[in-house]
Amino acid sequence: MLMTPKPPYYAVIFSSHRTTHASDEYAKAAEEMFALGSQEPGYLGHESVRDAVGAGITVTYWDSLENIQKWKTNAEHLVIQKMGRDTFYEEYHVKIAKVEREYHWSKFHEDN
Amino acid sequence: MLMTPKPPYYAVIFSSHRTTHASDEYAKAAEEMFALGSQEPGYLGHESVRDAVGAGITVTYWDSLENIQKWKTNAEHLVIQKMGRDTFYEEYHVKIAKVEREYHWSKFHEDN
Repeated sequence: MLMTPKPPYYAVIFSSHRTTHASDEYAKAAEEMFALGSQEPGYLGHESVRDAVGAGITVTYWDSLENIQKWKTNAEHLVIQKMGRDTFYEEYHVKIAKVEREYHWSKFHEDN
Repeated sequence: MLMTPKPPYYAVIFSSHRTTHASDEYAKAAEEMFALGSQEPGYLGHESVRDAVGAGITVTYWDSLENIQKWKTNAEHLVIQKMGRDTFYEEYHVKIAKVEREYHWSKFHEDN
């Protein structure tokens, strides 16, 4: 699972419902977007899950609000956002949140 | 999709990997936990997605850190948390975050 630095840092919680549009095109666009995003300054990683009926939650982690804003207005990202609205999504919600605390548990060791 | 109040409020981001343990037992425990949690003071709702290979993200929303702490130490919740560690999960990460901004988009109307 994704390892993040010690808080504080920022999370962008993206929850969405997909249209029934071709999922291979969607997968390609999503991959492209993660590849782009991961090159941005301040990007700390992401976690993404989508279920069989088209509900998804993606959380991306960032070092600052400034770098989230930069990524939001990145030219190539704007193109993909438009594809998302035109083709891939019925609906989405975006929340910007400051991570204040975190802890991890695994069957193998505990660090909280 | 879940409607939340105007920020600020709090998010608990729970990301996990399931064991291969019987998924009907897991579904029952998860349902019980959401039923319990939704009766707690300050609970604002949740979003939860799990994919076919056992990765999941659940985000629960709360009005305050105090109510998150209360829920964390709720006696019945502690029992379910122990079941989670003993049976259902390989690993999980919990992040407590303060939602500062949000916006919504849907094919039908836009409110950001």
